[in-house]
Amino acid sequence: MAKRLFKNNSNDFKDLGFGTQIKGRRMLNEDGSFNVIRKGVKGQSIMNLYTSLITMSWMRFNVIVLSYYLIINLIFAALYMLIGKDSLIGESANNLQDHFWNAFFFSAQTITTVGYGYIHPSGMISNFLAAIESMAGLFGFALATGLLYGRFSRPVAKILFSNKAVIAPYQGATAFMFRLANLRSNQLIDTNATLNFSMMVKKDGVEKRIFDRLKLERDKIDFFPTSWTIVHPINENSPIYGMTEDEVNESDAEFILLLSAFDDTFSQTVHARRSYKHYEIEWGAKFPPMTGDPENNKTVLFLDKIDNTIKAELPTSD
Amino acid sequence: MAKRLFKNNSNDFKDLGFGTQIKGRRMLNEDGSFNVIRKGVKGQSIMNLYTSLITMSWMRFNVIVLSYYLIINLIFAALYMLIGKDSLIGESANNLQDHFWNAFFFSAQTITTVGYGYIHPSGMISNFLAAIESMAGLFGFALATGLLYGRFSRPVAKILFSNKAVIAPYQGATAFMFRLANLRSNQLIDTNATLNFSMMVKKDGVEKRIFDRLKLERDKIDFFPTSWTIVHPINENSPIYGMTEDEVNESDAEFILLLSAFDDTFSQTVHARRSYKHYEIEWGAKFPPMTGDPENNKTVLFLDKIDNTIKAELPTSD
Amino acid sequence: MAKRLFKNNSNDFKDLGFGTQIKGRRMLNEDGSFNVIRKGVKGQSIMNLYTSLITMSWMRFNVIVLSYYLIINLIFAALYMLIGKDSLIGESANNLQDHFWNAFFFSAQTITTVGYGYIHPSGMISNFLAAIESMAGLFGFALATGLLYGRFSRPVAKILFSNKAVIAPYQGATAFMFRLANLRSNQLIDTNATLNFSMMVKKDGVEKRIFDRLKLERDKIDFFPTSWTIVHPINENSPIYGMTEDEVNESDAEFILLLSAFDDTFSQTVHARRSYKHYEIEWGAKFPPMTGDPENNKTVLFLDKIDNTIKAELPTSD
Amino acid sequence: MAKRLFKNNSNDFKDLGFGTQIKGRRMLNEDGSFNVIRKGVKGQSIMNLYTSLITMSWMRFNVIVLSYYLIINLIFAALYMLIGKDSLIGESANNLQDHFWNAFFFSAQTITTVGYGYIHPSGMISNFLAAIESMAGLFGFALATGLLYGRFSRPVAKILFSNKAVIAPYQGATAFMFRLANLRSNQLIDTNATLNFSMMVKKDGVEKRIFDRLKLERDKIDFFPTSWTIVHPINENSPIYGMTEDEVNESDAEFILLLSAFDDTFSQTVHARRSYKHYEIEWGAKFPPMTGDPENNKTVLFLDKIDNTIKAELPTSD
Repeated sequence: MAKRLFKNNSNDFKDLGFGTQIKGRRMLNEDGSFNVIRKGVKGQSIMNLYTSLITMSWMRFNVIVLSYYLIINLIFAALYMLIGKDSLIGESANNLQDHFWNAFFFSAQTITTVGYGYIHPSGMISNFLAAIESMAGLFGFALATGLLYGRFSRPVAKILFSNKAVIAPYQGATAFMFRLANLRSNQLIDTNATLNFSMMVKKDGVEKRIFDRLKLERDKIDFFPTSWTIVHPINENSPIYGMTEDEVNESDAEFILLLSAFDDTFSQTVHARRSYKHYEIEWGAKFPPMTGDPENNKTVLFLDKIDNTIKAELPTSD
Repeated sequence: MAKRLFKNNSNDFKDLGFGTQIKGRRMLNEDGSFNVIRKGVKGQSIMNLYTSLITMSWMRFNVIVLSYYLIINLIFAALYMLIGKDSLIGESANNLQDHFWNAFFFSAQTITTVGYGYIHPSGMISNFLAAIESMAGLFGFALATGLLYGRFSRPVAKILFSNKAVIAPYQGATAFMFRLANLRSNQLIDTNATLNFSMMVKKDGVEKRIFDRLKLERDKIDFFPTSWTIVHPINENSPIYGMTEDEVNESDAEFILLLSAFDDTFSQTVHARRSYKHYEIEWGAKFPPMTGDPENNKTVLFLDKIDNTIKAELPTSD
Repeated sequence: MAKRLFKNNSNDFKDLGFGTQIKGRRMLNEDGSFNVIRKGVKGQSIMNLYTSLITMSWMRFNVIVLSYYLIINLIFAALYMLIGKDSLIGESANNLQDHFWNAFFFSAQTITTVGYGYIHPSGMISNFLAAIESMAGLFGFALATGLLYGRFSRPVAKILFSNKAVIAPYQGATAFMFRLANLRSNQLIDTNATLNFSMMVKKDGVEKRIFDRLKLERDKIDFFPTSWTIVHPINENSPIYGMTEDEVNESDAEFILLLSAFDDTFSQTVHARRSYKHYEIEWGAKFPPMTGDPENNKTVLFLDKIDNTIKAELPTSD
Repeated sequence: MAKRLFKNNSNDFKDLGFGTQIKGRRMLNEDGSFNVIRKGVKGQSIMNLYTSLITMSWMRFNVIVLSYYLIINLIFAALYMLIGKDSLIGESANNLQDHFWNAFFFSAQTITTVGYGYIHPSGMISNFLAAIESMAGLFGFALATGLLYGRFSRPVAKILFSNKAVIAPYQGATAFMFRLANLRSNQLIDTNATLNFSMMVKKDGVEKRIFDRLKLERDKIDFFPTSWTIVHPINENSPIYGMTEDEVNESDAEFILLLSAFDDTFSQTVHARRSYKHYEIEWGAKFPPMTGDPENNKTVLFLDKIDNTIKAELPTSD
């Protein structure tokens, strides 16, 4: 009995990790991240610090680094002032009237190890503080070097997806399609696509989310030089076969793509994800080509044409 | 004859590398490392130096780096003193009375390349020593940069495991279960689980350890956004089918999980291991959900609920 | 009906991503890159900046770095001059007459953090500017460190291909052959080859490009110590079986190799690509060995013999 | 006819890339590298520079770096002397009598960016030279940082192999065995072994090298915590079945192991290779265990016992 039950519930084993009760909200965000918040564990921000610093925008990264530089110098300047007026000597007397700014610029000269020497520490405590500060400066700089390299060298696929999927005529029937292109000049090879599907289904009065993997016309390409149109032919094996546009919308349907490729510039495997909700599907449309006339004997790809669609009559079901 | 023997002893070929005589001690430690000491080879600590420096705690790493900085400066200060009082000149006379501390701070200014210049070397030998020291400083700093980057960028899966496994009711029968969640915000995909099992078996009066791979309800998930409950259904194919709690405890049983996943932030495959000994199993319990009400249209995962279990009556075997 | 059409057009699913209308131009350039231009997206050069800096020649990279160093110093020198004559003081007065060059060299001393101190900033604004410049210097240097490491450590297969393929006699019939060798001393293992083929075909008066994967005598070698001759036997299963040299030339044929191997020095998978157009095929030739007499008990491989071919009569088709 | 020939010569397709005429010399050196010299291409040493600097011994690497530091300083010292006595001014007059050593130490202070300033450049040309030198110093240091990190972080399997293989009694018959252990404390998982075999065979009076892949008792282990004995059972399917010790020696036999594993500390796949020539086989011996009594509830592995063998009578063939 347990055995039979085990076999019949095979849909439970395809829930993608989101559970069967999720309704009315995306599973994947537009940027491909999971639509999930983690709670209940302290130290998450520390644990994710490197990941955050590596993945944040350059603007934000630079602001953080400069702020950090400013704050550290303010702290050390305050410490030199605490030690006393005689902690820093040299020509500074006739240079800057303000003791604080003297200390501040001395700190900057120490932490960057530029060390002009026209201001320099005097006495045990300030010498010790300067030794610590220059050491800290080197360490901070080592951190920055690592972070900059980490930011640059992280292999990320920059894939451009069409912002809408279409239901297009296809070989006498219809197909679900969207397309994608490689934004970067990195060469992608061995590109694989996996398309998952999910919708709410009512059975015996209970609503439940089901999951399925969709068959693709082609799920692997050796090279990915131009654009690739992902095509799921809607035939008897498709879970949306025979459904109307309204039925698909009511079912809270979501199509989830997982793309993997070998990036030949970084010699590493990269991934991209994209989900299309039912309201991101255009019914009765198809994608015109993205390539133009060859130039200098080269194929030309127009990346700004990726969202172009043209109306295309769907075959009537009869 | 040799042929037949070869076929019958197939259990020997699944010993996981721990041998068949291990008893009463864990094979895997709680942190997933092998419970093994290596002896008889010199230079192990040198060979494992990088690994140690990369994997030790930040606290310990910082203490080691600071101690090293202090010791190097003490050594060079001693060397400058050995050369003589005139080795370092400049304003230092009226700065620090103590020649040793003068030498110490000059060393710090040299090794960090801050080089204020208010103290500077005089004479062939001290100039040469300072040239060596600044070079050594750059090298040490290059090492630190590499180590810091190595520590940060090492792709490690931070998987949170439930501290107990349970024997839970499952589809009219029972199943062995435990659960896990991704602690970090890194996105894990293509997650695979392999569950090995081992126990002592008495045959013809001889006790011997046997090994087996356990069938899982699901051994692969495309996405790993929330938590994952690993389920081994206890049916006729399970090596613990029909055993009582006392029999499992006496057999010195150990369940060993090997988890692999693709970390999409680092674009690398990561692994995690966890073993459950018989005394870490709770009989007649099940795991309540870890997710709560959605917030801002996002699924919420409570990581602190991972160890929660609730009593659940097991079906009687008849 | 839709079903039958789906099965018959299976050639459409092997178009390698170049489409079926490409004619008279290479799909792959000689260096293995795709013969494609991307247009229509702004910011491409920023996005590809790291890739460019990592893959450009050393000559160009060094010129860019030195130019950048020069320009930055010119800019800061101009800024110090804008602040005024008193912005930089010290012995400079009797050193360089020209205020601009004083500022320029002070800038160089600041950005490299060498900071002799014989020229130094005076006043709030120039001190602040110097603090910013030394910080920028460290940052620029961190960038350079990362780029240099990225350039060095990028795992790239340096594969030497014969510049011509041959149609050679082979086991009583003929075969399409070319050969390749590992230029570097890195050890390549688990080497795999995939050979794709494409030509124009006229059907019902319409010309269309078809694609096919060619069978190889051997498509995988465990080790790659010397040279490897890729052999496609031309038998009934080959798309060029029965074609004459003129027919192959008129069909605008292109043979595309995709090679992958595990580089044991970098512990990473590397790839190489090479295409042969019909005009790069020598009919009736074969490759003589590239190895010579052993020296010091070692096999000797002559890499400069890779392009050597000798005439070889092809069997007549009867 | 061509077809039949193709099928019969299947041994040609397993030549491992060494050809069939290699005799009396190893294919793999003891360290696992290919026993091959590459000739005929210029620039090989430049192309392999990074690989050499990354793989050479620490002793040699440090000597090269220090020599380079010395030579660069000598060159710059000579250049400052060429410019003239007035190129470097400051307290140097009463410091070092020798102008050359003054220039030498100034160069060291500049290239390391320590820049005390008590000697400093004077005049356009020497200022320019110093600006170039400090820039070059930063660049050289960036290179050193990258190289040091490259040396440390390169994932290399340190596998200890028994220096002899044995022909041991095995399940009533015999087997070819050798063993290996992980020298480092890194955790290896998913370890795979492939054993290739090669010997000279005389056929119709012509001697030719044949290649074969040997069946192993077990070719994959999930974990590799202690030691692993590779076992090739010598039964009817083995190419050396029925051969005597003398016949094996005369055939110039070589056993070649290719090992791959996932290193869990570096999260990368690592490889090791080892070949055993016929004269490295001990007939009639077996390996005693390498583990000792457990300490602190931990299994103890004695790595120095790896070469231990004990005599073991082989079953007579009748």
